[in-house]
Amino acid sequence: MDASPRIAIDAMGGDTGPAAMVAGMARARRKVDGIGFEVFGDEALIAPELDRHPGLKGAVNVHHTTDAIQGSEKPSQAIRRARTTSMGMAINAVKDGLAHAAVSGGNTGALMAMSKLALRTMPGIDRPALAALLPTLGDQDCVMLDLGANTECDAQNLVQFAVMGSAYARTVLGIRKPRVKLLNIGTEELKGTDELKEAAALLREADYLPMTFDGFTEGDQLSRGNIDVVVTDGFSGNIALKTAEGTARFVTDLLRRAFKSSLRSKAGFALSAPALHTLKVHLDPNNHNGAVFLGLNGLVVKSHGSANPKGVANAIGVAARMVANDITRKIGEDLDNFRAHAFSHEAAE
Amino acid sequence: MDASPRIAIDAMGGDTGPAAMVAGMARARRKVDGIGFEVFGDEALIAPELDRHPGLKGAVNVHHTTDAIQGSEKPSQAIRRARTTSMGMAINAVKDGLAHAAVSGGNTGALMAMSKLALRTMPGIDRPALAALLPTLGDQDCVMLDLGANTECDAQNLVQFAVMGSAYARTVLGIRKPRVKLLNIGTEELKGTDELKEAAALLREADYLPMTFDGFTEGDQLSRGNIDVVVTDGFSGNIALKTAEGTARFVTDLLRRAFKSSLRSKAGFALSAPALHTLKVHLDPNNHNGAVFLGLNGLVVKSHGSANPKGVANAIGVAARMVANDITRKIGEDLDNFRAHAFSHEAAE
Repeated sequence: MDASPRIAIDAMGGDTGPAAMVAGMARARRKVDGIGFEVFGDEALIAPELDRHPGLKGAVNVHHTTDAIQGSEKPSQAIRRARTTSMGMAINAVKDGLAHAAVSGGNTGALMAMSKLALRTMPGIDRPALAALLPTLGDQDCVMLDLGANTECDAQNLVQFAVMGSAYARTVLGIRKPRVKLLNIGTEELKGTDELKEAAALLREADYLPMTFDGFTEGDQLSRGNIDVVVTDGFSGNIALKTAEGTARFVTDLLRRAFKSSLRSKAGFALSAPALHTLKVHLDPNNHNGAVFLGLNGLVVKSHGSANPKGVANAIGVAARMVANDITRKIGEDLDNFRAHAFSHEAAE
Repeated sequence: MDASPRIAIDAMGGDTGPAAMVAGMARARRKVDGIGFEVFGDEALIAPELDRHPGLKGAVNVHHTTDAIQGSEKPSQAIRRARTTSMGMAINAVKDGLAHAAVSGGNTGALMAMSKLALRTMPGIDRPALAALLPTLGDQDCVMLDLGANTECDAQNLVQFAVMGSAYARTVLGIRKPRVKLLNIGTEELKGTDELKEAAALLREADYLPMTFDGFTEGDQLSRGNIDVVVTDGFSGNIALKTAEGTARFVTDLLRRAFKSSLRSKAGFALSAPALHTLKVHLDPNNHNGAVFLGLNGLVVKSHGSANPKGVANAIGVAARMVANDITRKIGEDLDNFRAHAFSHEAAE
């Protein structure tokens, strides 16, 4: 592989077949210099889509397969078809050095299980985590992890998530020294589980890492725009992410209902529409698309199943930025650093 | 005590002193037949407020004390002043039979600790829980518990929360057979922690209880309006509640920003204002005020510290409905029923 990013694409993973994936590739190709694609899926469906995007000419290799993981398949079933499915083959392309990162819009559980099996957890990480971007009131999104890969986590897991989340914020958001907080049910030091208290103590001492650990935060602070990385176990993270998505939809549904309630409010909506468009853009999941499995020996990005071409291009952009900034190496260095300090600390005691 | 509800009020607990509490009492007095109040706090501050609400004449006894629990006080410190503080005295009024329920806008942790100590957990309940109402797209709010009283919960705790939450939905929302779900990170039977899976198995068998248990739900379904009771451990519940509050504020902040962004959108806002007012009413925490400690030998309602008179009146209304419908007896009956079935089931095996 040369220096330009080469991305493996599971063309069959999204909700609507290869159309959005291929259009997203074309969009990404216009933004990322020299990006190329290894595409896995049904050639009969992919070829006509490629024809619609001449900009992709010469940048794509198609690997034909008709086997695809379904949305309802259990991870334990999916992993048996790692060699034959578009998802499994895209991940293997990363393992085999054919691509720098894989992007799929398919079944999250299957993608996680296959990625772990093929790429293995990187040295120093006990469990990989799923990280994603949350919209905020600030100029930047906020990174949150874990979002469901690990139902229960100990203090070491949480510390590793903090290291991985910071590396993600540094490489993808370009923040030099990210501000990191642990999600809890109160901000006082005594609040929460033993795991959280122990993780906070470990992170407070790790002031040599390229992050600023700033204690606990609560669910109502996630979108305020003053945190760069929120660290949590996968159960709470999944609850928080989905509650945030559901509440945003709830409020916008109420808003839609309000605007439709009278002729007068319909006229008001028509006048406000351009301004309200910025609200819609801000909340559109496509603009925050690209959840990442961190902690593996290779990069895998999960795109929303229903992502449009812009969303797919964002997920591909996340993958390309992680490749260009060598996030796996950065995580490895920070972990080595953490272990070296923890060891010298123990030895000194 | 006669049949009319008598409510103990911690007049000093809210963020702004007794003004909102007394105005809320006056509002509740107009809605609830024969309601009366035992009010605890600084008489010099309470008397002038009472003078402003002649409708309260004859319905109020004031018990003077100048000691009050501060918002920042730790529960372990607060419980030492149970006899002298307005909060502690209001709870003791329930214990001593002077009032049917207590309402406070003070420090949640202190209120919980003092309530547990004075009123004790009711037979059959291992841990009391904090329940509150969430706004939804439907006609009814949704009950969620626990919201932070218990950081970690086992299956029995979750089953008891389901019983208490259903009794709450029956008495306060008037739903004959509430639809109950467990909050999880997926809806498949295999998802989540062992505690959740075990609780689901127990609840699935308990079809003789006055509830319909309907499996797992996820964070994005909380405000859809098709669940009456959401059961969760206190950690996840607190994260979900605060994330929902924070996200609702985030979206409305973005909306405000959008409307202010141009003259045109300002005009649109002016036209839409009456319709948008219904959105505001729907999301206003005052309209869902009144979190309840369930599972104690006595009723204690937590009002938002920043509740306005309408919010306080809603919290008092929740207390009065629980008293009128004898929720504590209903919870006791359901628990007896659950234990009798569980026992006969074990004996038959």
